[in-house]
Amino acid sequence: MADQELRRRHPNEKGDPDIDSEAADSDGPTEAVDSELEDVAKTVGQGTDSTPELLEGTLAALPPRWRNWVIRGIFTWVMIFGFAWIIYMGPLALMCITLAVQVKCFSEIINIGYAVYRIHGLPWFRSLSWWFLLCSNYFFYGESLVDYFIVLVNKLEFLRVLVTYHRMISFLLYIVGFVWFVLSLVKKYYMKQFSLFAWTHVALLIVVTQSYLIIQNIFEGMIWFIVPVSMIIINDVMAYMFGFFFGRTPLIKLSPKKTWEGYLGGGFATVLMGLLLSQQLARYPYFTCPLEYSESMDGVSYQCDLPPQFLPQEYALPGCLATLCKLDFGDLIPGHGGIMDRFDCQFLMATFVNVYISTFVKSPSPHKILQQVYTLKPEQQLQLFTILRDQLTARGVLG
Amino acid sequence: MADQELRRRHPNEKGDPDIDSEAADSDGPTEAVDSELEDVAKTVGQGTDSTPELLEGTLAALPPRWRNWVIRGIFTWVMIFGFAWIIYMGPLALMCITLAVQVKCFSEIINIGYAVYRIHGLPWFRSLSWWFLLCSNYFFYGESLVDYFIVLVNKLEFLRVLVTYHRMISFLLYIVGFVWFVLSLVKKYYMKQFSLFAWTHVALLIVVTQSYLIIQNIFEGMIWFIVPVSMIIINDVMAYMFGFFFGRTPLIKLSPKKTWEGYLGGGFATVLMGLLLSQQLARYPYFTCPLEYSESMDGVSYQCDLPPQFLPQEYALPGCLATLCKLDFGDLIPGHGGIMDRFDCQFLMATFVNVYISTFVKSPSPHKILQQVYTLKPEQQLQLFTILRDQLTARGVLG
Repeated sequence: MADQELRRRHPNEKGDPDIDSEAADSDGPTEAVDSELEDVAKTVGQGTDSTPELLEGTLAALPPRWRNWVIRGIFTWVMIFGFAWIIYMGPLALMCITLAVQVKCFSEIINIGYAVYRIHGLPWFRSLSWWFLLCSNYFFYGESLVDYFIVLVNKLEFLRVLVTYHRMISFLLYIVGFVWFVLSLVKKYYMKQFSLFAWTHVALLIVVTQSYLIIQNIFEGMIWFIVPVSMIIINDVMAYMFGFFFGRTPLIKLSPKKTWEGYLGGGFATVLMGLLLSQQLARYPYFTCPLEYSESMDGVSYQCDLPPQFLPQEYALPGCLATLCKLDFGDLIPGHGGIMDRFDCQFLMATFVNVYISTFVKSPSPHKILQQVYTLKPEQQLQLFTILRDQLTARGVLG
Repeated sequence: MADQELRRRHPNEKGDPDIDSEAADSDGPTEAVDSELEDVAKTVGQGTDSTPELLEGTLAALPPRWRNWVIRGIFTWVMIFGFAWIIYMGPLALMCITLAVQVKCFSEIINIGYAVYRIHGLPWFRSLSWWFLLCSNYFFYGESLVDYFIVLVNKLEFLRVLVTYHRMISFLLYIVGFVWFVLSLVKKYYMKQFSLFAWTHVALLIVVTQSYLIIQNIFEGMIWFIVPVSMIIINDVMAYMFGFFFGRTPLIKLSPKKTWEGYLGGGFATVLMGLLLSQQLARYPYFTCPLEYSESMDGVSYQCDLPPQFLPQEYALPGCLATLCKLDFGDLIPGHGGIMDRFDCQFLMATFVNVYISTFVKSPSPHKILQQVYTLKPEQQLQLFTILRDQLTARGVLG
């Protein structure tokens, strides 16, 4: 996680002149806007990662290579305990954290677009972007809540209205933003404004839809959040450590400081520790049970029969994805240096986990099907009941 | 529909010098790429809308204003009969047409991006874009088919495998494209290539997701396709005719040839004719019934109890949308002149109709819930049956 942060602070500690050269070289004549964007990308969202002064003083005696190592070690433990604390706080805390990270990432992407285009004095870009963020979160979070809290929803009249008209409300909110966008158009700048509009929508596509998938994963059981997130962190840390001690062979040109030793060692350690972690977590219903609103407890319930799929081998593939992802990304995505930089793989992983759950894990729940049956008219319920009875009798299931 | 086509052929027939001036004026020094894009947008996809020579000769004696009117009238009738013929061919033909329009629109948007960036000799952009089109269509069409042809799916082993692993297969296809994209990166052009990647994804978002919604709408009953599409055509034609005969007061600067008379007359005529059309269509199950695969017929069935929602007033809102949409769009979207130009409102309308159906029309179907029950394990089916029996008895529904 802290990988790029520290690398930036000591960009030349290994005497590598290649770092950042691709960004600095690209000021060709027809590339004005693009290189403008790159300049901004380099300054936006550098984060506030200054090492505390006290620590800096204490470590001054060490050679920079080892100082880096100690700082990294301390931050790793701080983060592990922080992460454990959030997990202890439960799924709603996890969702809030996810939402906070999403908002920060979105803000970074939007600021890149804004920094480029504010010189033209174009109106409303940021307000519009935040409006679209609000609309899409309203839509996606609403869709989740409908699915998982249907019992609670049916109890509260106010919520029921919101749920019944959920998609229409979301659509109208979006249309308000769309009309607002059209009204904000300034002659001679249509193309620029359409590009910004597209930029905002790509940001929504990356950040909002994938953080929605994270929320869905948490609802399926906290293990689906903890293990993938941990594996990416483990991969970061272990790849760094293997590289630090054994790194000799350069891996790819894109990231000159990466080595084969770090890459393979990190990958191996990730799969191994992922297996161990998931084996441990799989013992506790707190981690493995899908969240369901329980009417009797008037809160979230963690009770379920342990799904039979909780076997170790299912984590081999995410392990590969964690290493593959770290190989491909790193220094590529605009906005390099901000929080988005540390969550790019997390978002991709979330999508994978969501697909994985829906393909291999999720089984239909009698409870949820029953909830659907109760939405039918009485005569339809009776009709369904009769057909089911005849069918079960014919198959010998019903005596 | 043919509105912009004809207007372009006689851009100055009303002596308006403003048309297209916004595109020509914007060659500021920092706007090289943008104006490059605009130049391309003006030349890409102008369509092949030349009037047949015979017709041109016959009409030469008429003043241009009336010649335009006659041509428009003839094409209107050709299109009405073409449209009726496609509807007669049934829902599968409609889906094929939708797919064809989608591919053409996507190709136009992609060509704009391609034309700008091919000067830099960047590799794989078009192949990658078509690959992503393939992946997303595979994903979205698959999701539809699972929903509507579940009976058929359960009969064919081959299909069942595809359905079971559908999301995973789609995800892996996408990842193949993603890795391909990363491998295609050329130093110094990262930012340009990421912009292209974003461009492709915005195209997918606009074209593929919304054409998927059109397919969903068709599955809910062909009326949900025919009425909205017709209303936009009616609005185009009637706004032109009202404007032609009564137009005096200019409407907005964005489209200098539009008048208040045309706008209001067109809106009024659209709502009125939309009501009449939907009243007529609502009589026939062929138009109003959701499509369901029928095992006994081994094909698509059009039988259902007429849903109680088929009342005239539900079309007032789409009527407003059709006129609003025609007011806002028109000359704004890049790629102006291609087929995309004639389908922008259709896509937005499809989203609205989809939201409308899911909010106000769609009611839970006992048939589909039963299909879900059958996916449970026998003991779970029995459990659900018992709970339902007790509940129905307690409520007095079951004697």
